[in-house]
Amino acid sequence: MHPSPLTLINLQAATMVGKSDPYGLIADAALVLDQGRIAWIGPRADLPAAHAALLQKDMGGRLITPALIDCHTHVVHGGNRATEFEMRLQGASYEEVARAGGGIISTVKATRTASQADLVAQALPFVDAMIAEGVAVIEIKSGYGLDAETELRMLRAAREIATLRQITVKTSYLAAHAIPPEYKDRADAYIDQVAIPTLHAAHAEGLVDAVDGFCEGIAFSPAQIERLFTVAAQLNIPVKLHAEQLSNLGGAALAARFNALSADHLEYLDEAGVMAMDQSGTVAVILPGAFYTLRETQMPPIALLRKHNVPMAVATDMNPGSSPMSSLLLAMNMACTLFRMTPAEALAGATTHAARALNLPNHGTLAPGQAADLAIWNAQHPAELAYRIGFNPLHQRIIGGAL
Amino acid sequence: MHPSPLTLINLQAATMVGKSDPYGLIADAALVLDQGRIAWIGPRADLPAAHAALLQKDMGGRLITPALIDCHTHVVHGGNRATEFEMRLQGASYEEVARAGGGIISTVKATRTASQADLVAQALPFVDAMIAEGVAVIEIKSGYGLDAETELRMLRAAREIATLRQITVKTSYLAAHAIPPEYKDRADAYIDQVAIPTLHAAHAEGLVDAVDGFCEGIAFSPAQIERLFTVAAQLNIPVKLHAEQLSNLGGAALAARFNALSADHLEYLDEAGVMAMDQSGTVAVILPGAFYTLRETQMPPIALLRKHNVPMAVATDMNPGSSPMSSLLLAMNMACTLFRMTPAEALAGATTHAARALNLPNHGTLAPGQAADLAIWNAQHPAELAYRIGFNPLHQRIIGGAL
Ligand SMILES: [Zn+2]
Ligand SMILES: [Zn+2]
Repeated sequence: MHPSPLTLINLQAATMVGKSDPYGLIADAALVLDQGRIAWIGPRADLPAAHAALLQKDMGGRLITPALIDCHTHVVHGGNRATEFEMRLQGASYEEVARAGGGIISTVKATRTASQADLVAQALPFVDAMIAEGVAVIEIKSGYGLDAETELRMLRAAREIATLRQITVKTSYLAAHAIPPEYKDRADAYIDQVAIPTLHAAHAEGLVDAVDGFCEGIAFSPAQIERLFTVAAQLNIPVKLHAEQLSNLGGAALAARFNALSADHLEYLDEAGVMAMDQSGTVAVILPGAFYTLRETQMPPIALLRKHNVPMAVATDMNPGSSPMSSLLLAMNMACTLFRMTPAEALAGATTHAARALNLPNHGTLAPGQAADLAIWNAQHPAELAYRIGFNPLHQRIIGGAL
Repeated sequence: MHPSPLTLINLQAATMVGKSDPYGLIADAALVLDQGRIAWIGPRADLPAAHAALLQKDMGGRLITPALIDCHTHVVHGGNRATEFEMRLQGASYEEVARAGGGIISTVKATRTASQADLVAQALPFVDAMIAEGVAVIEIKSGYGLDAETELRMLRAAREIATLRQITVKTSYLAAHAIPPEYKDRADAYIDQVAIPTLHAAHAEGLVDAVDGFCEGIAFSPAQIERLFTVAAQLNIPVKLHAEQLSNLGGAALAARFNALSADHLEYLDEAGVMAMDQSGTVAVILPGAFYTLRETQMPPIALLRKHNVPMAVATDMNPGSSPMSSLLLAMNMACTLFRMTPAEALAGATTHAARALNLPNHGTLAPGQAADLAIWNAQHPAELAYRIGFNPLHQRIIGGAL
């Protein structure tokens, strides 16, 4: 099942562990892969004799990092919103776009009429683009069905993608994403009649790795999210939350009370929310693609997150409306350029901290015992990964120790 | 030499000509390729019998556009500035970066020590990335040598790239890019002793398709640029200019007086400059990658350019400092997202108007007699090209009529 043990040599390793420098660099590294795990990593000069006897592969001095992890995507969905994008740029008002069937509800309609095969087929080109950039793990959310049948179909499509490609998929159940037209002005009824019952059904089918929600004036109130999270806690499913994207409703603190894996977006997060996240070990998922697309001007509080040592992940938020972006490398560049994160923070955000946001402790670092999911780059310095804009320097992806 | 005549059918063509809609769309198009040119294009129902008898290839209903044209790049250069990018984000001051050898002079040093083979080898991955996005023509500037030998070597590298890849290269001689350390505070002497004599040498070697300059407080004055442009005019070489990027020195109007092909950047352009460009038929080259990277807030005057019917091109400005971006599709998205250009303007900017900025009247549109340089996309609507962020939907590039 697993390939033979193998030693990679002549690499510069950004291990993302240790305190010597922000990347945990090992200049002339060797890395032993065995049984889908990293068996040994360190300076090549220290390679134990037993490992030195294994088959060796010379990687030409290239940079190696943990394979990338995109911890926030809506890559499974029907249709696209290119025409709406065009209408807005032609000067159409919000009402004109809505009258023409635009907005999130247009994606809900397209998703409801798509079969599972349609959803998978539409997602695969973007998943393949992610794989081509060295991504080994993606999170995929439901949330464009907003009815039991379609929410389940989206999650099944997400699971199917993991069988079709060499990629790990973590699902998030996001029925609490928007209020569907048939529940207009009845958000509580939607939570009770759709979101909670469908969570039970999806969980029974093994489709839910986390429960997510959108806590915002245009979506669900903290009290509504809390009712959903209480069910998630009873089922022992971890939670995460779209919080403080457009205003501060205290969503991050709510998520922290439920020991959330992550709170995501966070442009309007205040210091109390940051401190609550620190207490609960909740990851801050930074999503510059939506900030860029929406031309937001309020930046997430990066300095406060740093001050309180809240781990920051970076993700694409790949979705057809507010972030039709499938490049995690570009999200890393945007995190630096738009939010002044450092290239090392951006790389940790797409590896170590993204793994933590998905509850994957064996991913996102290069250390003995970790999954041998690796990315090898045509780059001399790890800062190049965030420095380039719209360029993919991947040389090779290694998944489960297999070249 | 040329492949056999061929008819492409079952295509949606964005011809970029005609007034029916901004893309010149033909819904169910056929396109006849012969002798490296487009012999016929129109609705498939109107295909003349002689062409219908040719070998036909079914393109599956895909979108076809003119192949893309990147009309402003500095893709030939030595080194990169990832470490400088990182230093700045770690909070280093301008002086600290300069002391560490950063800024444009670091690229000049790396370029001066690079051989022609080095320059070509470093540029090719980016050229290949452009080709993979459907680009058929790129402009390449000198301007990191700032001495005779290195300026010539950069232009020779640009010409060599055209022999190694299926791409048309147009060169711009940009010795007036920056003042090298050895001419500090002696810009006039640099123009007289280096820029003008090297222009003669480069022209004699057939290396110069256009003469370019950087008219700015930190670079060259309008009077200095004018002396260089006067020589270009004597040699009958068209000119273009980096103008009004950081301030308004009247560079665009100066360029217009020399009937410049283009004035580029233009964030600080005023209406008088726009009107001068209109009079001379000078293309406005919009470079959102530099705006994005520099976190500029002054937008180029898109509404004024529209009002005066100045054609707008869009390009990457691919360079190691202010725009390390190699994706023209991403530049199109940025032109829309950051500058509110429409997707149709962005596509015209990367085809028709880019061709005009490079003095290539037979490129950039789909019409009989035009070069058969084509891009075929996995897209249903041309707005998708600018809508996506960091995703490449290219199905196939056709160059010189060859599949
Ligand atoms: Zn989201
Ligand atoms: Zn330039």
